[in-house]
Amino acid sequence: MEILDGKKISNDIKDEITVVVSKMKEHGEKVPHLAAVLVGTDGASLTYVGSKVRSCKKIGFESTLIHLSEETTEEELLKQVDALNTNPDIDGYIVQLPLPKHIDEQKVLMAVDPDKDVDGFHPTNFGKMALDMESFIPATPFGIMELLRRYDVETEGMHTVVIGRSHIVGRPISILMSQKGKAANSTVTITHSRTKDLASITRNADIIVSALGVPDFLKADMVKDGVVIIDVGITRVPDESREKGYYITGDVDFKDVSKKASHITPVPGGVGPMTIAMLLKNTLIARARHTARNSS
Amino acid sequence: MEILDGKKISNDIKDEITVVVSKMKEHGEKVPHLAAVLVGTDGASLTYVGSKVRSCKKIGFESTLIHLSEETTEEELLKQVDALNTNPDIDGYIVQLPLPKHIDEQKVLMAVDPDKDVDGFHPTNFGKMALDMESFIPATPFGIMELLRRYDVETEGMHTVVIGRSHIVGRPISILMSQKGKAANSTVTITHSRTKDLASITRNADIIVSALGVPDFLKADMVKDGVVIIDVGITRVPDESREKGYYITGDVDFKDVSKKASHITPVPGGVGPMTIAMLLKNTLIARARHTARNSS
Repeated sequence: MEILDGKKISNDIKDEITVVVSKMKEHGEKVPHLAAVLVGTDGASLTYVGSKVRSCKKIGFESTLIHLSEETTEEELLKQVDALNTNPDIDGYIVQLPLPKHIDEQKVLMAVDPDKDVDGFHPTNFGKMALDMESFIPATPFGIMELLRRYDVETEGMHTVVIGRSHIVGRPISILMSQKGKAANSTVTITHSRTKDLASITRNADIIVSALGVPDFLKADMVKDGVVIIDVGITRVPDESREKGYYITGDVDFKDVSKKASHITPVPGGVGPMTIAMLLKNTLIARARHTARNSS
Repeated sequence: MEILDGKKISNDIKDEITVVVSKMKEHGEKVPHLAAVLVGTDGASLTYVGSKVRSCKKIGFESTLIHLSEETTEEELLKQVDALNTNPDIDGYIVQLPLPKHIDEQKVLMAVDPDKDVDGFHPTNFGKMALDMESFIPATPFGIMELLRRYDVETEGMHTVVIGRSHIVGRPISILMSQKGKAANSTVTITHSRTKDLASITRNADIIVSALGVPDFLKADMVKDGVVIIDVGITRVPDESREKGYYITGDVDFKDVSKKASHITPVPGGVGPMTIAMLLKNTLIARARHTARNSS
């Protein structure tokens, strides 16, 4: 059994990007610049955005945090988005979700320039991805693909079962893994809340991607020997005995399932760290595209 | 066994649209206007476009056929596309594929205003569809969904197997049938050229959508009793004994498979006629959206 070590791989990727960025600096080129827009003071959001900004600094990117008050109106936020779209210094930016309830999230995401949409949430990028065109791939599925590629996991002709049809994980990964290319060419089954007898489907899976958010949902009797397990679930379980007051766990009953698996991602330290690395990778890609466009 | 009669249902839909259009005329409202751009003199394309224009006339739509010579440059075609985008009288238009080889098809499709893209081929519409937003759904998968809905075929929780991952059929239908809603909520498996032991997968299917284009590919021993069969294959097989010199056949060995199926689409007369009906439906939807936008 091999652990798919997202922490290690994400560090490798960040190291590779760091090398690229120092060369950019050496050559007097503009380095990638990522901006993040945060509205309000949600604790988890603050943590995520803070961690993204710190990662930028570490690898040599420029970064800008735009922290707006909870009372920001939709109009004000759209103005901010427009300013980021037209600012030539910004290569990519994210609008941290969730937004306060008085703001129409979809309207805001639609206003992001697809060429700067490093989260890959804009329908134009999503459609390009589904139609095998150049786009930004959402960071979590992009991270899963990269993890499979770096560990040389065989996916071609394999039966991949995806649990969950969310817009940010289940749907895109089911598309990506059934396309042509590396870490792809799988036969993919997408399952969800209306799926009947899920266990009979997962038992036939060579690869399982679980993006459900229910702790210990996937048990050993639901998988076959030699299965590859990608656990995208990240749930905070309250636990007063821990310093933080909670612990992080995935969708998979790791202790038992890992005995049957050929490869498995741990939680934490699996898909989670990959997500931020791929956001940085997308920003590097955005910078390269902007350079190519300006010089052509 | 029930035949899913696409010819009958497509006529029903055209009749319903005809009623709506006559009411529009009564009220002095602008009726839907569909334009079609045809480049060159490919026989099949001429037939398809001709049939679309005739259908428009029959149901009371305005229609415009823009027939350009084989020698049309990409720049000239893009100018034409731009003129259609800005012409307020045009509600929707299609660019008939394939285009001559000297023209970049993707570039042309990207230039179509998504609000007039009644073929639903623009990435923005494709992405919106995949993200459960309002969009134009490509006519063939839209037709399949409508056929399932009108015959009240149970899809929720069923296992649907899609054969083929094309951008215009396999990919969109696999997304649509696994979303929430009517004629959807299926557990969907998408299969393709790299899929191993396809028969073992199709034998477990409650519903099979075959969009392969290989005559008589799906045999009776590949399906289970009671299966629902949607045959999207349309192949012209040369046959000198026929007046036209060919006959049309689907992916499914109809004679034997129909004995096991609970529902099955014939070829011709199944999915084919639905495609044109749904193109007209999309044009009606485009008109309604443009009216709503102008009055708001």
